[in-house]
Amino acid sequence: MKATMLYGPRDVRFEERPDPTIIQPTDAILRISAACVCGSDLWPYRGIEPTTQPRPMGHEYVGIVETVGSAVKNIQPGQFVVGSFATSDNTCPHCQHGYQSSCEQREFMSAAQAPLLRVPQADGTLVATPHIPSENLIPSLLTASDVLGTGWFAADAANVKPGATVVVVGDGAVGLLGALSAKQMGAERIIVMSRHETRQKLALEFGATDIVTERGDEGVARIKELTRGLGADSVLECVGTQESLMQSIRATRPGGHVGFVGVFHGVEIPGGEFFFSHVHLHGGPAPVRRYLPKLIDLILSQKIDPGKVFDLRLPLDQVAEGYRAMDERRAIKALLLP
Amino acid sequence: MKATMLYGPRDVRFEERPDPTIIQPTDAILRISAACVCGSDLWPYRGIEPTTQPRPMGHEYVGIVETVGSAVKNIQPGQFVVGSFATSDNTCPHCQHGYQSSCEQREFMSAAQAPLLRVPQADGTLVATPHIPSENLIPSLLTASDVLGTGWFAADAANVKPGATVVVVGDGAVGLLGALSAKQMGAERIIVMSRHETRQKLALEFGATDIVTERGDEGVARIKELTRGLGADSVLECVGTQESLMQSIRATRPGGHVGFVGVFHGVEIPGGEFFFSHVHLHGGPAPVRRYLPKLIDLILSQKIDPGKVFDLRLPLDQVAEGYRAMDERRAIKALLLP
Repeated sequence: MKATMLYGPRDVRFEERPDPTIIQPTDAILRISAACVCGSDLWPYRGIEPTTQPRPMGHEYVGIVETVGSAVKNIQPGQFVVGSFATSDNTCPHCQHGYQSSCEQREFMSAAQAPLLRVPQADGTLVATPHIPSENLIPSLLTASDVLGTGWFAADAANVKPGATVVVVGDGAVGLLGALSAKQMGAERIIVMSRHETRQKLALEFGATDIVTERGDEGVARIKELTRGLGADSVLECVGTQESLMQSIRATRPGGHVGFVGVFHGVEIPGGEFFFSHVHLHGGPAPVRRYLPKLIDLILSQKIDPGKVFDLRLPLDQVAEGYRAMDERRAIKALLLP
Repeated sequence: MKATMLYGPRDVRFEERPDPTIIQPTDAILRISAACVCGSDLWPYRGIEPTTQPRPMGHEYVGIVETVGSAVKNIQPGQFVVGSFATSDNTCPHCQHGYQSSCEQREFMSAAQAPLLRVPQADGTLVATPHIPSENLIPSLLTASDVLGTGWFAADAANVKPGATVVVVGDGAVGLLGALSAKQMGAERIIVMSRHETRQKLALEFGATDIVTERGDEGVARIKELTRGLGADSVLECVGTQESLMQSIRATRPGGHVGFVGVFHGVEIPGGEFFFSHVHLHGGPAPVRRYLPKLIDLILSQKIDPGKVFDLRLPLDQVAEGYRAMDERRAIKALLLP
């Protein structure tokens, strides 16, 4: 098959690779229905995360099960499945506590920007839909694999409750779907920080009530203005930089919650300021598996339409253009169709 | 009157000071029944926190109301009262959310190691007992003013629930009372990290089920051993150093909670490690006022006896010896009687 490899900064190649095979009896092989480029793929693409050797790319996927290993019990060939970007056995104590992305058997997925994909721990990682879904729902189901599940976790980790005032820092796909998630959780006010017109528009479609274009200290001052000087109940940190984290902590009221899902690269949280902030801090790699049944249900019943984040569709062999478009912020998120 | 002043590192003086008077109409003046030396007083005493000018010391207090300002409505002369180390109006939005130590009118108390004390925002800061308590309960009521309230907040911020496995990092008065608090909240297992025999003994009296003497990486390894490799549900960080915080985060299971109350001096939380830890982090200056009614009730009904943390009693004029004894760890906590 031909699949996607990253050789170094801005060097994405679609090239011949061996077909994946069952390695462990708990594996499954999927025929990918759709894959996509993730905001987090841009870290190595931009060289911020070093690439020491060519690496297979992609960790978001939906597809049809082709074959399963001998120990796989629940997942069957022919099923349409959605899986998390982190594998999990879904039985260990961490999984039982709902932290499947800290599963004792966790592996981070890769190689999903391809026509075929090996998924370890298939029984614990994958969730099958009741029927083969109609084609128009596939992009939305694909978002559940990462960006929707991650936005949902950001909102959950930020303790979004009915009536809450919520701020979303970051207008990438995760931030936008964080706004959608907060809306589903009953937030009354959803303030999205964004300077990009197309993203603002989508944020409003997903349930945002206010847009703030200021950043940093000015952004925090604007949030304070909008919240009677108090700060927000819940802030979703969907970027992962020092600036965005500090902006998030400072925009939260004492006793409020910051849910963070942007991977921290070189971020240090200053203890003294954090101590006196009285803010709750929780996040990390989203335990998408915990939310998959609920999210699949919301999508199949067409209560949410998260697939709108895909504003670029490409055949898989044009994957390099998907990276370029997202890197240059010409696209929010690129859908790849094998 | 004579009262306690800190002039610089290890320079505590008990000297003539003007009697406090009502400054704001919301003030009250108390005649102090008992005061004490706090672990946090040792920061400036040791010179870790600089003392630029002589400062009045003491922020833990119980006493009888002498006079009140014209705007004070609920607190009356003659009442026995317990107050928090942080003042609060108990009506602003932060107070209503239970974060009275982030009150819009917050001041941090000082000058309580004295026979008379001015308390701002008396109505919101002080809680009166139903009757004048018997003398033997006064030390316990005094702990509610800070160390018990702070230990209780550490346990609450660490989300201690019935059946939980709890670790307490720090065997000072706050840590020991954190163990007592965890016990009251129904924790099944309470592991206290301590190397000091008298403190270990008190920890066990307060409800600890295990003592761990190892620290740092070895301490974390021991906690992992005691928790089937998982880590604890709830960890109470009652020290405030880089080492104790990292020990706390690393001893917590993914999805577990660290409640921190040790004031962070120069601590930096490494974002990358914290991101992947999946730990909840919450704490800061304890909103003692939130818990005072409950804690006073537990003490008056003799369900808890937190006053045991006082293992040194001194007349107030020997306050300097109280500091010395705590600095040299000869005493857990020094009670001062005017």
